[in-house]
Amino acid sequence: MDFSINNFFDKKYKDSKVGHFQDLDHLDGLSISTVSCGLYEKKRDDLVFFYFREGASHASVFTQSKLISENIKWNKKIREKKVYGILTNTKNANALTGIEGYNSLKKISINLSKLLNLKQISDEDKPNPIKPSQLLFACTGTIGEKFPESKILNNLENLVQKIKYNQNKLIWIKAALGIMTTDTKPKLSMAECKIGTSIVKIYGIAKGSGMIFPNMGTTLGFIFTDANISSPLLKQILNMNIKTTFNAITCDGDTSTNDMVSIFATGKANNREIKSIKDTKLKQFIGSVHQVMLNLAKRVASDGEGATKFITVNCKNSISEKDAKNISFSIANSPLVKSAIFGEDPNWGRIAMAIGKSGAKVKENKLSIFIGPYIIYNKGKLDKNYNEEDVSQYMKNENIVITVDLSIGQKNFTAYTMDLSKEYIEINSDYRS
Amino acid sequence: MDFSINNFFDKKYKDSKVGHFQDLDHLDGLSISTVSCGLYEKKRDDLVFFYFREGASHASVFTQSKLISENIKWNKKIREKKVYGILTNTKNANALTGIEGYNSLKKISINLSKLLNLKQISDEDKPNPIKPSQLLFACTGTIGEKFPESKILNNLENLVQKIKYNQNKLIWIKAALGIMTTDTKPKLSMAECKIGTSIVKIYGIAKGSGMIFPNMGTTLGFIFTDANISSPLLKQILNMNIKTTFNAITCDGDTSTNDMVSIFATGKANNREIKSIKDTKLKQFIGSVHQVMLNLAKRVASDGEGATKFITVNCKNSISEKDAKNISFSIANSPLVKSAIFGEDPNWGRIAMAIGKSGAKVKENKLSIFIGPYIIYNKGKLDKNYNEEDVSQYMKNENIVITVDLSIGQKNFTAYTMDLSKEYIEINSDYRS
Repeated sequence: MDFSINNFFDKKYKDSKVGHFQDLDHLDGLSISTVSCGLYEKKRDDLVFFYFREGASHASVFTQSKLISENIKWNKKIREKKVYGILTNTKNANALTGIEGYNSLKKISINLSKLLNLKQISDEDKPNPIKPSQLLFACTGTIGEKFPESKILNNLENLVQKIKYNQNKLIWIKAALGIMTTDTKPKLSMAECKIGTSIVKIYGIAKGSGMIFPNMGTTLGFIFTDANISSPLLKQILNMNIKTTFNAITCDGDTSTNDMVSIFATGKANNREIKSIKDTKLKQFIGSVHQVMLNLAKRVASDGEGATKFITVNCKNSISEKDAKNISFSIANSPLVKSAIFGEDPNWGRIAMAIGKSGAKVKENKLSIFIGPYIIYNKGKLDKNYNEEDVSQYMKNENIVITVDLSIGQKNFTAYTMDLSKEYIEINSDYRS
Repeated sequence: MDFSINNFFDKKYKDSKVGHFQDLDHLDGLSISTVSCGLYEKKRDDLVFFYFREGASHASVFTQSKLISENIKWNKKIREKKVYGILTNTKNANALTGIEGYNSLKKISINLSKLLNLKQISDEDKPNPIKPSQLLFACTGTIGEKFPESKILNNLENLVQKIKYNQNKLIWIKAALGIMTTDTKPKLSMAECKIGTSIVKIYGIAKGSGMIFPNMGTTLGFIFTDANISSPLLKQILNMNIKTTFNAITCDGDTSTNDMVSIFATGKANNREIKSIKDTKLKQFIGSVHQVMLNLAKRVASDGEGATKFITVNCKNSISEKDAKNISFSIANSPLVKSAIFGEDPNWGRIAMAIGKSGAKVKENKLSIFIGPYIIYNKGKLDKNYNEEDVSQYMKNENIVITVDLSIGQKNFTAYTMDLSKEYIEINSDYRS
């Protein structure tokens, strides 16, 4: 795909399934820089740096995989209340690269912090020495290949020189493009809300687009806010929201070694500090963070490899939330359901199969299955008004909603996914995509 | 595909990945009959009856799905020590068809037993009245569609008339073709062994070929033997063997409502009856049943929808068998691993990803990953002799072996699967395939 910024307004960046992305703008305390250090054969930005000039409080959630990449190991060790930046590279996951891969990050963090400290001096910032352990790393790309340490080291100076203290929508698009791998669309989302009397911004970008399941996508998701909020509170807010957003999407049931979703708060909005998650002044903020995270998560699912349709799977009225989640994901991960949807076939029998194999408690004579607004299976029987022609027509939509009503409890879950197309195979059978 | 028997010797029925099937022959006490009752638009055999003229002891294992088809409900209720036949239809799964679907089986069993009893009289068999509850049903096809009761009822007389007391390889092929849905190849296997001084035969046929996971494929698998063995012993033998055969294959991680594997023993080999599973005289027989079941299971995986390659996944030296199984299936079910293999890309990073996401205990610095005979990742490091060119060459084989050595315990598991090709999507996105 063409990564040049000239395509910014191109309709191919729009995603009609989840709406065109909003324009992101300046966010105080954040700087963005992107460069190409030649990780791809064809030149494109592959290194993106988000810099917090005066630091930011922060929180992250990481992949649940038992094999994690070296940068996730690095990030997990960070105990600093304030961090100064996150460096993202594509093409190489720095996973299964062992101590060598870890040491590369060490070297890069030392060099980058030095360059940043020199820049602070030349910019006449108030002295605020940055330690290597105050920088995070996000890596995405092929697992098991040697980490391109020197290519990155060689481009750090250029990267720091290009830091822009003011963002506009173009630099955000560049950043969102710069973190992409097999994604076809940049993923951006924003919201504004109040904490007390202060208006705060919440900006987010993300990437997908394979290995998106179950505990967060291979998603890299970064949320930035100018709100003044402590790291422990950010952590609570992230944990509250992750379950129904990034942990509710699946592409192929595969989970990456590199998943992470982080939130950074620069504090520049200068709202009065909030002490407790229960403070009602936080309510709007929590909702807005959820909105941004859900919007990004949907964009990741909608742009899953080879996707032609965006699928929402609701499971209602189950005995436990675990059962509702298992059923939703059993449907959302079923290759047979997903390829039937690609073929626009209302093959509800495969939905029933996926319900059955989930292992969740279900009573056949209470079970109902809907596709879109149409009830097909109604409490254990084919609905007498079911008209396959109507549902076939509905299947031509870009957005498909499947709803399963178990009618045996009160718990619900919603999962998001895409269909399984021939293009998925094309993308993933391509030698080392 | 062409279901005509003329294609019997056609090379397309051969499966070079698992070897051409053996010729099955006469098995005393078994009769086979096949007819077309017009369930498909294009005429083909769609109803196959295996008849035990003097009854057979029997045992079955069924799908673990929480939503099971009406014929599985029927079979689960059978308490008779001797059964007289199993009727298999394709095209319709009789699942989620409710009491109406169940009552269809009742009617069919009543009519079929009557016809068989009349045949016994006209054949001057010793009087042995067959009850409806001594007939089993296997159904495979679309879930949720009305069961074609009358089409089947109308063809029972024809089916009974066509019963042949002598089998040859042609009738076996006809039977194996008659139970197929999207399979491309009939699946047959055989073995002979001794129980005491008597030679006994073990013949098996099976079908796949989507929804093959995890507790047995959507496989219908039927094993027939002329051994004289009681139903309780058959049940123990089936349970011993199922774990490493039909429960070790996966096609797409989907599980059917209709899975069943049954074993029937006509007793005609007249071996002295065995009382205990521990009797050493049974050892050969247990091994031979395993051989037939494994051969059939491999054929099912090898002919999984759209398969171009047969994949064996070994997980060695894990702490528990559960972990070994989870890792093997996590790899065998990963769309990313399977599409890389389709693309002949030795993308071992995706194997690592699948190991990590399995949730099984793994130590990175003890982990080794092999593709074929080549070690790639050697106890936490890329092996120093790893040559990607060699492994790329190996990937062109039809048979691909992946081996994961955890080196932290002594438990092993082997799973079998196929690659994920564009044809899988083609088959499964076809309207109501």
